[in-house]
Amino acid sequence: MAANLTTRSQETADVLGPLMENMTWPEVVEAAEQGYVPILVVGATEQHGPHLPLGSDWILPLEIAVGVAKRLKVLVPPPLMYGFKSKALSGGGQRFPGTASLRGSTLTALVHDVVSELARSGFRHLVVMNWHMENVNFIWEGIDLAREDGGLRDATVMSMDDPERAFDMREIETWMFDDGFPGWDVEHASTVETSLMLAVRPELVRNDLIADDAAEDHPWYDIVPEPERHVAKSGVLANASQASVEKGERYFEMIVTEVAAAIEREFGTERHG
Amino acid sequence: MAANLTTRSQETADVLGPLMENMTWPEVVEAAEQGYVPILVVGATEQHGPHLPLGSDWILPLEIAVGVAKRLKVLVPPPLMYGFKSKALSGGGQRFPGTASLRGSTLTALVHDVVSELARSGFRHLVVMNWHMENVNFIWEGIDLAREDGGLRDATVMSMDDPERAFDMREIETWMFDDGFPGWDVEHASTVETSLMLAVRPELVRNDLIADDAAEDHPWYDIVPEPERHVAKSGVLANASQASVEKGERYFEMIVTEVAAAIEREFGTERHG
Amino acid sequence: MAANLTTRSQETADVLGPLMENMTWPEVVEAAEQGYVPILVVGATEQHGPHLPLGSDWILPLEIAVGVAKRLKVLVPPPLMYGFKSKALSGGGQRFPGTASLRGSTLTALVHDVVSELARSGFRHLVVMNWHMENVNFIWEGIDLAREDGGLRDATVMSMDDPERAFDMREIETWMFDDGFPGWDVEHASTVETSLMLAVRPELVRNDLIADDAAEDHPWYDIVPEPERHVAKSGVLANASQASVEKGERYFEMIVTEVAAAIEREFGTERHG
Amino acid sequence: MAANLTTRSQETADVLGPLMENMTWPEVVEAAEQGYVPILVVGATEQHGPHLPLGSDWILPLEIAVGVAKRLKVLVPPPLMYGFKSKALSGGGQRFPGTASLRGSTLTALVHDVVSELARSGFRHLVVMNWHMENVNFIWEGIDLAREDGGLRDATVMSMDDPERAFDMREIETWMFDDGFPGWDVEHASTVETSLMLAVRPELVRNDLIADDAAEDHPWYDIVPEPERHVAKSGVLANASQASVEKGERYFEMIVTEVAAAIEREFGTERHG
Amino acid sequence: MAANLTTRSQETADVLGPLMENMTWPEVVEAAEQGYVPILVVGATEQHGPHLPLGSDWILPLEIAVGVAKRLKVLVPPPLMYGFKSKALSGGGQRFPGTASLRGSTLTALVHDVVSELARSGFRHLVVMNWHMENVNFIWEGIDLAREDGGLRDATVMSMDDPERAFDMREIETWMFDDGFPGWDVEHASTVETSLMLAVRPELVRNDLIADDAAEDHPWYDIVPEPERHVAKSGVLANASQASVEKGERYFEMIVTEVAAAIEREFGTERHG
Amino acid sequence: MAANLTTRSQETADVLGPLMENMTWPEVVEAAEQGYVPILVVGATEQHGPHLPLGSDWILPLEIAVGVAKRLKVLVPPPLMYGFKSKALSGGGQRFPGTASLRGSTLTALVHDVVSELARSGFRHLVVMNWHMENVNFIWEGIDLAREDGGLRDATVMSMDDPERAFDMREIETWMFDDGFPGWDVEHASTVETSLMLAVRPELVRNDLIADDAAEDHPWYDIVPEPERHVAKSGVLANASQASVEKGERYFEMIVTEVAAAIEREFGTERHG
Repeated sequence: MAANLTTRSQETADVLGPLMENMTWPEVVEAAEQGYVPILVVGATEQHGPHLPLGSDWILPLEIAVGVAKRLKVLVPPPLMYGFKSKALSGGGQRFPGTASLRGSTLTALVHDVVSELARSGFRHLVVMNWHMENVNFIWEGIDLAREDGGLRDATVMSMDDPERAFDMREIETWMFDDGFPGWDVEHASTVETSLMLAVRPELVRNDLIADDAAEDHPWYDIVPEPERHVAKSGVLANASQASVEKGERYFEMIVTEVAAAIEREFGTERHG
Repeated sequence: MAANLTTRSQETADVLGPLMENMTWPEVVEAAEQGYVPILVVGATEQHGPHLPLGSDWILPLEIAVGVAKRLKVLVPPPLMYGFKSKALSGGGQRFPGTASLRGSTLTALVHDVVSELARSGFRHLVVMNWHMENVNFIWEGIDLAREDGGLRDATVMSMDDPERAFDMREIETWMFDDGFPGWDVEHASTVETSLMLAVRPELVRNDLIADDAAEDHPWYDIVPEPERHVAKSGVLANASQASVEKGERYFEMIVTEVAAAIEREFGTERHG
Repeated sequence: MAANLTTRSQETADVLGPLMENMTWPEVVEAAEQGYVPILVVGATEQHGPHLPLGSDWILPLEIAVGVAKRLKVLVPPPLMYGFKSKALSGGGQRFPGTASLRGSTLTALVHDVVSELARSGFRHLVVMNWHMENVNFIWEGIDLAREDGGLRDATVMSMDDPERAFDMREIETWMFDDGFPGWDVEHASTVETSLMLAVRPELVRNDLIADDAAEDHPWYDIVPEPERHVAKSGVLANASQASVEKGERYFEMIVTEVAAAIEREFGTERHG
Repeated sequence: MAANLTTRSQETADVLGPLMENMTWPEVVEAAEQGYVPILVVGATEQHGPHLPLGSDWILPLEIAVGVAKRLKVLVPPPLMYGFKSKALSGGGQRFPGTASLRGSTLTALVHDVVSELARSGFRHLVVMNWHMENVNFIWEGIDLAREDGGLRDATVMSMDDPERAFDMREIETWMFDDGFPGWDVEHASTVETSLMLAVRPELVRNDLIADDAAEDHPWYDIVPEPERHVAKSGVLANASQASVEKGERYFEMIVTEVAAAIEREFGTERHG
Repeated sequence: MAANLTTRSQETADVLGPLMENMTWPEVVEAAEQGYVPILVVGATEQHGPHLPLGSDWILPLEIAVGVAKRLKVLVPPPLMYGFKSKALSGGGQRFPGTASLRGSTLTALVHDVVSELARSGFRHLVVMNWHMENVNFIWEGIDLAREDGGLRDATVMSMDDPERAFDMREIETWMFDDGFPGWDVEHASTVETSLMLAVRPELVRNDLIADDAAEDHPWYDIVPEPERHVAKSGVLANASQASVEKGERYFEMIVTEVAAAIEREFGTERHG
Repeated sequence: MAANLTTRSQETADVLGPLMENMTWPEVVEAAEQGYVPILVVGATEQHGPHLPLGSDWILPLEIAVGVAKRLKVLVPPPLMYGFKSKALSGGGQRFPGTASLRGSTLTALVHDVVSELARSGFRHLVVMNWHMENVNFIWEGIDLAREDGGLRDATVMSMDDPERAFDMREIETWMFDDGFPGWDVEHASTVETSLMLAVRPELVRNDLIADDAAEDHPWYDIVPEPERHVAKSGVLANASQASVEKGERYFEMIVTEVAAAIEREFGTERHG
């Protein structure tokens, strides 16, 4: 990334990568002028079973964003590593130690502020990419409040609430799930996420602890406070043992390609020369 | 409803129905003691094309709740008739006149307050039933904040973010959609909602104005501010012309049955004697 | 109402009435162009003794608004059916089951949002009509915040905090109250409200339960938390038994006439042709 | 005041008066133990015509509180000198230079915090006394929020929204107003307030500038934004020229007596020995 | 002050002083036109040991502001007499009776509102002068939010978070502290504040109760909740007994001179003729 | 770190380090039981001149926390990488591209939530370590609000607002600054920070761009909006060219040692065996 920034040698660019935290402010000025697009990642710090780390929900979209940055003029600002509260039926719920969540108003304010500041820095196109179902709508509202109070200037923001909506599950189902797609809500610490982590951050996966699990009961509604029977004991909500490096690599490539295509199409963002 | 309340004759009960707004406070005391369950409906005031009224998103769940009240000991408090902002790709967006929306924080505060007050009134079990996709998570957060600050007392709240998640779309698809299920996001003012309104509130449907439509482009991400090509001109997001009274009646019966079953199962709510 | 909307026959208009919830978005466009004025009703869900329903505080102004709509080009958006907390000395206080109230900040946010959205829909003149003393100032602040942040566009809003301030109580006293006007604060579930309900929604009045009551003590200040002696046991704060259909009809006619006159005078709103 | 505090000589007490700002923290401990009651004054910084100072709305209740403190064991914490926004028809509105107002949420938060802190300091009974109509309900809500979140401990708070509600206006009318009582809303910078200021803070009254005025139009509703015809040019809303020192002294004595009586009755607060 | 206001005689001006609360709105108009600068004082109501009053943190900057007003065209609006919570290591903490503090959000909202209103009143230059370390940043944020939402109009605000940063402590140390400067954090109710109060408000100092004290432990970090060993028993954080009238007068003169110089330099504010 | 966790081999522990994001939830349970202490780092994304990266304010305390974790049983949760707005005189101000800041309320809410969640996860002792002067008080308030609403459970939180207050600057001055200590406010992107970055993250320092700079004017007060003369053009506020690896290593060692000592002393946190 950032190979074209006049203040960086190719060698330096290779070391620093697309992370905005590693850039200086004059580099930001130049990147904005060159049409670079920041991808603000929003995730969660949330239990992911005994085999995946707490950071999985922002580590994965961060890897995707970095993957996209290898193809397009894209930057990656410091991700929002805390997200909205975990629900029992899609993330195990708020009773797991290690899960550290925000109130909805905090998350919305955070997105509102950071998106406004990126727009102030001169970027004309922004992407916000989410990987935690419970964040849905709070993020969009943060962006919309920035629009309402003029914080976006004339920037345009693409909100990727759920990158996985990009795909036809009937196609993916054929090679990803042995027993059919169980629904994205229970795909928490299960086949897809475990496969992806095996592919991109294998050192963070406790291979010997991968095991299937499920809540005793998984209805179509939530109950507050959540009953025990809605909580999968291990924190794994479906069949993690179906995961494989190959599935992860295939799926990762699909997502990176699709996200990059969307950005290129909507914003005309250039590929690296 | 409320036939068992000692302060009401059967005749009166028939006139007043299950609406809490028509009850007196001593009747509330008795209903709470008898184990009645309030269903708080949350909807929106939002454009629904040229043929459906602005209130569709709360009129429909209100009809469902009243339907459930004919079977179970259920009450219906004044519904929340305004909801979160409309998104272009699932409701046409905020540019349509007639759409009147709340900020996310307002909706969350509203749910927080009303749910707390119903719990204070003595109800031990509550249902919150939503019919507007954009409300998702804001409602749950309102309930959870009530739990956090002690507002629920020891009440248990069932949050029905999306009653339609109760069904296997592959079954419904066979008789509801001629060309396959287009996704719940575009099922706005389209086949399902038009059919339901034809079934339960036909006088509110402008039959001669039912027509299909769609946004020019309907990607898997949102853009803020929304481009013209994401907005269906008429406000109809898919094929409204497939609607029929029969589909509506069949689907309405399915939902009422399923909602009633869920309440009975979870809360042990009694059927009317 | 709405007889002049080109998209509605007179017959349809008669069925649908002036409620915005029954309108479609193209009808809203036309109504705004024709100079229709929305009256946003704000009330409460609050105990009204053993004889009046919980919804009295929004049912009454809703009936008034509908009455005005029979004379002038007026629309009625979904009313705000929950209001600020009940005070012991003017509504019985927050300990009655069935009373379901909002925090002040919630009510203000709600008014702020809805008024802004109605202005965005194209209406140039708006009325907010309140029927719950405790809402006073929270409503005005909601409107003023909309003005401050540009949400009103160039709309003008008439805030009717208390329609009863329109009248000379010395005149009304002569025929309404046998023992003199006791003050609006205790006119809760008493002579005026019971008479009005008898006149406009008699099916909601439990005639056999009408009885006088009063708090043991009714000083000029409030105490928090409220002592028992400030709370009328039945929830009736004065002499409900003085109520009559005739009083209700006379008073209802007075209010509808005065509200309509105010709107016509200030906004130049036309009468139906 | 505070003559009984062991840490103060009578001479010191005379100098320092009942203002809490002049006390030390050990004196607060002793005062709380002795049953002293703080009267928290809430007013406004608001135009009061060409003849009265901006501080009138807190200067007057402060004088009243100090007057009460001469009779009862009462303390006066630093008053809240800024209040809610001025309305055109009861204070001239927000366009006058010198008027400096708070949003409703700010005022409520301020009352919430200060009342909670006074309760934390050990006082078991508190009074909040208001002199600005627009503050109504925001103050009560601040107190009630403190109650709700446990901030009151077991303190009891008397909220005097409007000390003038204590009186029978028909009696006062006979000697205060030459042409009848015009209503408390327009009694802004007019007969009552000018008389009181003449009685208690004559050095702050510009005698030569006292003159009558009124808005061109004074209806029973407010319009936002306010039209010119609702604003009295001089900021005087009625007949200031009727004011006199004698009226002020008589009325001041009445109020001090009534406030003291209320506190003594409700809280059993002792008179100075 | 205000001698040049055409509506005031010199004699009146001498009586009324520079306090805005004593001015009328037409005087504010004239003062703004003449380039007067308001100094908004922000302090706290906080324990100051057994010898200094609770109001010390706003009494002192108020005296300074009044001192500046004797030299320059400066006005003093009603001060913000409540401040952010007291910390154990710089003010004794929140457990002392008499300390009455605000949440940070309340203080920020208060500054936001009052600063905006002073700008609306026509003042082009404002000063906010703080005397309570815990207020730092909350005040600046209030000013900055006013700037952000347009509340400042084109006014410029000088934020004096800590007037004492104006001085070279190495110089002051030579004559103020017998044992060296202990740090501003513990200069609470100690040498500097006691000296200043002795100089400007001697009647408020309990001379016989001046004594040294200190917390048992005074580390460079705070602990929440604060341990006993971080709290100085008497509320005095260092050596109050070193105080003297002479030190107070010298220091007071230094501050008034420096504040006046800063205002004159930055805003071109005129001296009195 | 975490060598004693039964679920981790020493080899794994070496790879994963003390970052909580890399841990699983059962590891968190074990760490809490063993008395591990989380250090929550709070920094900023803020311009640091042409030679230091935007992330410097959280990269440095993160390195310090990791350094402490090599000695004591300490964990490092995901840091708060965005902080309060930059001020001109201590960070260059909000006009630099690349600076991305939060409103004060957002930062406080963030700290409130994360600290509460860490306490819920079972940690009894927490540290919050800040490296951005503008964050001061907002962080402490977040912790205190968690305490107030019960979010801390019985956890104790050490708030290190400014780790550099730990040292005697007169000692450091002798070897760090050639021309004397210029004050911590201008030590932004200057001698100390540049030296530290050279010591711990040299690959992020643009050596050839290190240069001294300063604002034209640097008074003891802030002006809003900031004048040009208060902004150092390059974003460097003092003498960066004095920086060296040696100074950085010496200072880093001092801080790590002091922070570790404080934690060990206050919380009895154990050293690694």
